[in-house]
Amino acid sequence: MNKNSARKSAPQHSLTHQSHVLNLPLQDTQVTREPHSHERWLVAKLMRMAGSPPIRFRLWNNDEIEPHGQPALFTVYLADPKALYALVANPNLAFGDLYSAGRLDVEGDLPELMESLYRTIHQARQKWPRWLEALWRNHAPRSTGPSEAPENIRHHYDLGNDFYRLWLDQAEMQYTCAYYERPELSLEQAQLAKLEYICRKLRLKPGMTVVEAGCGWGGLARYMARHYGVKVHAYNISEEQIAYAQAQARKQGLHTQIEYIKDDYRNIHGQYDAFVSVGMLEHVGKDNFTELSELIKRSLKPNGIALIHSIGRNRPMLMNAWIEKRIFPGAYPPSIGEIMGLCEHSDFCVLDVENLRLHYARTLSVWMERFDGAQSAITEMYDEYFTRAWRMYLAGSIAAFRAGSLQLFQVVFTHGDSNQLPVTRQDLYTFPAAPESV
Amino acid sequence: MNKNSARKSAPQHSLTHQSHVLNLPLQDTQVTREPHSHERWLVAKLMRMAGSPPIRFRLWNNDEIEPHGQPALFTVYLADPKALYALVANPNLAFGDLYSAGRLDVEGDLPELMESLYRTIHQARQKWPRWLEALWRNHAPRSTGPSEAPENIRHHYDLGNDFYRLWLDQAEMQYTCAYYERPELSLEQAQLAKLEYICRKLRLKPGMTVVEAGCGWGGLARYMARHYGVKVHAYNISEEQIAYAQAQARKQGLHTQIEYIKDDYRNIHGQYDAFVSVGMLEHVGKDNFTELSELIKRSLKPNGIALIHSIGRNRPMLMNAWIEKRIFPGAYPPSIGEIMGLCEHSDFCVLDVENLRLHYARTLSVWMERFDGAQSAITEMYDEYFTRAWRMYLAGSIAAFRAGSLQLFQVVFTHGDSNQLPVTRQDLYTFPAAPESV
Repeated sequence: MNKNSARKSAPQHSLTHQSHVLNLPLQDTQVTREPHSHERWLVAKLMRMAGSPPIRFRLWNNDEIEPHGQPALFTVYLADPKALYALVANPNLAFGDLYSAGRLDVEGDLPELMESLYRTIHQARQKWPRWLEALWRNHAPRSTGPSEAPENIRHHYDLGNDFYRLWLDQAEMQYTCAYYERPELSLEQAQLAKLEYICRKLRLKPGMTVVEAGCGWGGLARYMARHYGVKVHAYNISEEQIAYAQAQARKQGLHTQIEYIKDDYRNIHGQYDAFVSVGMLEHVGKDNFTELSELIKRSLKPNGIALIHSIGRNRPMLMNAWIEKRIFPGAYPPSIGEIMGLCEHSDFCVLDVENLRLHYARTLSVWMERFDGAQSAITEMYDEYFTRAWRMYLAGSIAAFRAGSLQLFQVVFTHGDSNQLPVTRQDLYTFPAAPESV
Repeated sequence: MNKNSARKSAPQHSLTHQSHVLNLPLQDTQVTREPHSHERWLVAKLMRMAGSPPIRFRLWNNDEIEPHGQPALFTVYLADPKALYALVANPNLAFGDLYSAGRLDVEGDLPELMESLYRTIHQARQKWPRWLEALWRNHAPRSTGPSEAPENIRHHYDLGNDFYRLWLDQAEMQYTCAYYERPELSLEQAQLAKLEYICRKLRLKPGMTVVEAGCGWGGLARYMARHYGVKVHAYNISEEQIAYAQAQARKQGLHTQIEYIKDDYRNIHGQYDAFVSVGMLEHVGKDNFTELSELIKRSLKPNGIALIHSIGRNRPMLMNAWIEKRIFPGAYPPSIGEIMGLCEHSDFCVLDVENLRLHYARTLSVWMERFDGAQSAITEMYDEYFTRAWRMYLAGSIAAFRAGSLQLFQVVFTHGDSNQLPVTRQDLYTFPAAPESV
């Protein structure tokens, strides 16, 4: 099937037949037989390997297996024996796939269950025997080279603006971490605060030029043009997003200040006062950091400032297999140390690193609330499998940021020999970044 | 000679006979002969290898060699031919040693000359042939293991409190980078602002406990006890400094809140709400980062916050050979990437990295001004060689921070699984950190 022609008629997703990829045995008939004793043993073993989370298992015949030595806070239901075997063989991938297919279900708050799992597994995996570590290991992420990147990005970002509009903020369609300057902010305020905060960190002034690598629906570029009077070249390889961004810029009379360019970031040319990239680095892949480093080096004027905003890790680790395979092909959230490799390669001077991980947990919670509110519309747009998969993705992400297995870094840097530096960070905080109302 | 017994009578330094270490040929008689043509060629070659800085050379017979294609901004005087040969053979070490011995002198602002040299050499060294790189390479720094560390530290920090009192701030004898929250602050204000800023970054509250690794003259511990009502265990292996710190704490009635401990940081025990280390990491040596990481891991309560303040680099690089051999034995300023190695090892969550390098350039400038004002007293206390060596060290350090070859990092982190995080950094900037007057 030609994806491009298909996309013109209706939004597509490629999530339905994932069970082939996992070799997940299909189960078409309802199972009510008694579980074998070895199946009960497998459940208990699985829970011990996961660090004994407070989870009750309910099996296909409604038999329940309680957690060891503590009350259950959540119940996980398995619809059939083959689901159990899939879970034991490859829990990273199967938990999400089975949930998506409705063959695994959860009673209790899904993000809280996932956070609990992340925390106990994080402790427990240090004691896993080597064979188990090998069996359950995540596979290397997909390539993010120039020929694969477009397909990776289309898989996620071209799901349709109508879909994202259902649950992202109404202000600027920001699909990255918001900045909750005050806890009571609305998502819209917090997303605009994020845009403002980034402009401040870049110390933008009227007349400056900015290049943006990976511009999403173009909200940051428009914010910069509108509020800071700068000229922006904004790159993105997602066709849907660029079309939306261009239309918005024209509507708002900002099209003379912004050029949205449907092209790979690797083709950025020219020199700018600022380089900014929000939520792209995690799709770049660490094999491409050196190239990106050199690109920033040549794109930034001698006294320019660069900012990279990216999901990251406390230490190098592969992306969760299910997220990487089903949701974000090729994703790799780097540690600060890995981002420093990028900076060191070009002798950049790192001025400021900030970790906003709890802001992302909160952002995702609001997204999930809105997503849940729009479930029937989304299921109509795609199907039940898709809706459940995305629910798992949002819940798992909330959990990962809360449990500290994902981080959100903003890194600000300059050329190594520039002395035109912001001397303190006080100017970032002189007045609120969020608008009083949206 | 037994150093300990010697130290009791008068402050000592071990800088006088450094020419043996360098194998610097001594020159006792004044040389006035004409330079040979190959000596003039060597000067020109040396300048080209250094990236053609705007320096005029005046040789022993007052012959002058102008810089190529530009007016001279500085003059370097060489007193004898052997000084030239030493400079060509090992410029990193010889420049400082010859200056200390008065066999190399400078007309023009010494920090500006050094900055100019740092900048041109930084560019030029990328084109050095391999043999030159090998010839001029810095040697590995001295060991900083438990048996060498005391001697390394004594070499520098036990020069005598009377010496440091002549040119450090009068407020808290801070021998680390000040925080120039506003450019017009006095050194005293800026040093107190630094102490306040660190307390804020640690989010100290009354009744908390703090452990400090490498406490200098104890000023931070006293500031914390006085202004934040915390209890501090402060470690240092410099006898002179600990004695001073204890006396000050008693005088100020803070001795019930602070325990100054004359011991290696490796012997820290107990668990604390905060771990802080200001200006120690650059003496720790990267071979000991793993051990330090594990120490912080076990010393920090589950929701504690740690702060490391250290001189650093944009990328891994050995310390300037002269500084490491003559001034700071064993010093190694790490890159953020190397500091991240320490953090990743214990799965720490890095919240905040700030680079204050221009603050250190300014701090050092004020120190040098005061040092220059006290030159005759210092020369009387030690000798001319010592005074000139320290002048070179201060000037070279100003230059290194201005040229971006040194950085000053403050890194704030927590355990990876703590969610008791400061959510934003606004609280650091709500009111001035510096006192209105000192």
